[in-house]
Amino acid sequence: MGRTPQVGTPAGMRELNQRAVLARLRTAGPATRPQVAKDTGLSKPTVGQALLDLERRQLVREIGRTSTGPGRSAVVYGENPAAGFVLGIDIGRERLRLAVADLSGAIVSRVDERNRCRSARGLVRLVGDLGERTVAEAGISPADVVAKVVGSPGVPDKETGGLQHAQNLPGWGRRGLIDELTGALGEGVVVENDANLAAVGELTAGAARGAETFVCITVGTGIGMGIVVNGQLFRGAHGAAGEIGYLPYGTAQGTPPERGMLETEVSGDSVVRKAHQQGLVDVRSAKDVFELARKGNEPALKAVGEEAKQLAFVVGAVAAVIDPELVVLGGGIGSNTDLLAEPLEQALRGTTPLRPRIVAGELGETAVQSGAIAMGLRSAREVVFDRALELRTS
Amino acid sequence: MGRTPQVGTPAGMRELNQRAVLARLRTAGPATRPQVAKDTGLSKPTVGQALLDLERRQLVREIGRTSTGPGRSAVVYGENPAAGFVLGIDIGRERLRLAVADLSGAIVSRVDERNRCRSARGLVRLVGDLGERTVAEAGISPADVVAKVVGSPGVPDKETGGLQHAQNLPGWGRRGLIDELTGALGEGVVVENDANLAAVGELTAGAARGAETFVCITVGTGIGMGIVVNGQLFRGAHGAAGEIGYLPYGTAQGTPPERGMLETEVSGDSVVRKAHQQGLVDVRSAKDVFELARKGNEPALKAVGEEAKQLAFVVGAVAAVIDPELVVLGGGIGSNTDLLAEPLEQALRGTTPLRPRIVAGELGETAVQSGAIAMGLRSAREVVFDRALELRTS
Repeated sequence: MGRTPQVGTPAGMRELNQRAVLARLRTAGPATRPQVAKDTGLSKPTVGQALLDLERRQLVREIGRTSTGPGRSAVVYGENPAAGFVLGIDIGRERLRLAVADLSGAIVSRVDERNRCRSARGLVRLVGDLGERTVAEAGISPADVVAKVVGSPGVPDKETGGLQHAQNLPGWGRRGLIDELTGALGEGVVVENDANLAAVGELTAGAARGAETFVCITVGTGIGMGIVVNGQLFRGAHGAAGEIGYLPYGTAQGTPPERGMLETEVSGDSVVRKAHQQGLVDVRSAKDVFELARKGNEPALKAVGEEAKQLAFVVGAVAAVIDPELVVLGGGIGSNTDLLAEPLEQALRGTTPLRPRIVAGELGETAVQSGAIAMGLRSAREVVFDRALELRTS
Repeated sequence: MGRTPQVGTPAGMRELNQRAVLARLRTAGPATRPQVAKDTGLSKPTVGQALLDLERRQLVREIGRTSTGPGRSAVVYGENPAAGFVLGIDIGRERLRLAVADLSGAIVSRVDERNRCRSARGLVRLVGDLGERTVAEAGISPADVVAKVVGSPGVPDKETGGLQHAQNLPGWGRRGLIDELTGALGEGVVVENDANLAAVGELTAGAARGAETFVCITVGTGIGMGIVVNGQLFRGAHGAAGEIGYLPYGTAQGTPPERGMLETEVSGDSVVRKAHQQGLVDVRSAKDVFELARKGNEPALKAVGEEAKQLAFVVGAVAAVIDPELVVLGGGIGSNTDLLAEPLEQALRGTTPLRPRIVAGELGETAVQSGAIAMGLRSAREVVFDRALELRTS
C-alpha cells in the first residue's frame, strides 16, 4: 500500500519525516513539538516543518496548548480524525447495519434496518441506498469515505465474483455479485466473510483483545466462525475456513451425515424448534426462549441445554482440529453465553480433554460492523496520507 | 540461532564471507571459485580465502575438477556433508524407527525394531540403546550428531515435561518423561508430535512439496494430524492442534459423543473389527483386509468402505474448520489410499461442498522419521558452522 517515497530527494525526505511525525501522534497520542522531536529523534526544526506540512494537508491539527508549569505554553498537536472516514456494513439475513467512523475509530453515524429483501438485486440496491444515507447522516461527502468494508455471509469466490455458501441470502452466489455491490457503493469496496469480521472486531475491541490464536463462533440466522492465528485472520486455502455449518453431523449409527445439517440443527429457528419439542408451543423466537430460561422456566432451560450440547459438538470439533486458546461466542443465539456456557462446558467435559476457554463476545450485534471498521481503518490512513500528498502536488 | 558475527571487524567480515560462500554451495550445488565469486558478488581472492577457511574447518571439500573446455581445469568445491549428522527417531506403538542422516539429508544408517516395551522406563531405555546402535552403525562418534529429533504420539507438555494424550504408550504422560528421553539420548533432543513430523516429511520430500496450507492425516495404531499453514507447522495454542482422535463422534440421535471414540472407531484394530462384522472371521490384521480387498473380496471391500466413510467424517470436519488445499493420507491404515480414496470422496460428496484434494503420502512408513531428519537439518547446519568456529578460535 502507499507510494514509496523517493528517498534521497528533498521531497522524499520531507515525506518520510511527515510519516514519522504522524506515526508518533497516532501511536502515542497528542504531543508538543519538543516531545515529538524527542520521541522520533528528528530535530525540532524538522519536526516543525513536518507538522506545518501535515497541518496544511489537514492530517494534523492543533488540539490545545500545554498549561502546566511556568514559561510559555506550547502547542499540542494531534492527528486530525476527520481527515478521512470509513464505512462499515454488516449484511445479515435479518438486519442491515451500517456505520461511518472517523480515523480515530469513533462512530459518526449509524443506520440499522430490517432486511426485507427477497432478491439479490433488491438487496444490493438497498445496501447502496443505506450506504448513501449513512454517509449523509455523518455530514460528510462520499469522497470523504476512503475505505468501505462489507461483511456478508458466504465466501467470496475470486473466479465467479459471487459469494459461495451464503444459503440464507437468495441469489448471493451469482456471478459478479461483488461487482454489483461495488457498483452500488462506489469504488474501494472490500467484501469479507461476516464471521471473519466478527473475529476481527472482538480482537480489536472486544473479548479477544491480546489473544494470539482464537476463534469467534457466531450463531444466529446461520452459524459461522472466524479464525485468528498469530494475530492474523486465517481464511484457509479457498477462503472457506470456519464454514462450520458444514461440520459432518450424524443422526444415527451408520447414517451418513447430511450436508449442511449442523447449520439447520443449531442456528436459525433451531432453539424455537427445541422449545416446541419441550411443549412450549407458543414461543416464536429464540429470544423468547432465552428469556423464559432466564426466568427459570424448565422446558426453556431444557431447550437451551439441548442447544448447548450441539454447540459442544462444534467447540469439541474445533478444539480437536486447531486447539484455540479462546472461543468467543456471539450472534443472536450464541451471545446468550450466560445460559449456554455451563451446559456447554459440561458436555465438553464428557467428550474431550481439549477444553478451550469459552467467553461471550463483548460487541454483541455490532461485532461484524466493528470488525468491518477495524479492517477499513488499516488501509484508510495510508489512503488518506497518499491522497493528501497527491492533492498537494497536483 | 548462531552467534552474530562481529560486523566491521576483519574476523567478522571473514565469517560473513564464509557464510555467503557456504550458502551458495548449499543452495545451488558444487561450484568453482569463479562461479562462486560471480554468484555471491565477492571478489575471487575473497572467495579463495573463504574456501580455504571452510576447507580447514571441514565444512567444504574439493569434490573434483572441471574437465570440459580447453585450458586449465578448475577445482570444484562442495559442502562437506560429513561435517555433521542428524539422528531422527520415530517412536510408534508397534515399531521404533531410527535413522542417521548427513548434512545433505542422505541416510547413513537405519534401525527398525519392534516395540515390545510394556513400560515407559523400558521404552526410554530401548530408545537410548537403539540410538547408540544407529549412530555406531553410521560409523560416526556420538559427538558428530549435532541434532536429535524424536517423533512421538502425544503432545509435549511444557509444564510437566510429559507427553499428553499418548493413549497408546503407557506411562508416556508422566512428569519429566522428556527429560528421561534426553538423558537416554544425550543433549540436544527435540521431541515433536509424530503426526506433525509426518506433515513436515511430506512437505519436505513427499506428497505435499510446494503446498502452502495442507494437513497430513496419519491413521495407524492411532489417528493424528499435522497441519501446515503458510509453509509452517501449526501447533495450536497448547500444541494439541490436529488431535483429531478427539473429534466428537456421535452414535445415535441425542447420545452425546464419547470421549476418544473416533480414535477407537477408525484406527488400530478398527478395520479388522469391520471385516469380522462382514463375516471375515479369520483376518488378523488391517493389512490382510486391504490385501483381500485388493483381490476383489466383497466383504473386505465393504469393511474398507465403512472405514472410508468414517475417514470422510474426519476429512469433512477438518475441511469445515480449516479448509486445507490438500489432505495427505498416511499411516498403516491411511496409506491404503488406492482403496480408500474413492469411497471416501463419494461419502464427502454427499456430506459437504468443501472437498479438498486427497492424495496418498509418498513416504509411507518413513514419513515421521523423514520429518524428524528434515527438522533436525534446519538447526544442524547452524550448529556445525558455530562449532567449527569455536574449535578454530579455542
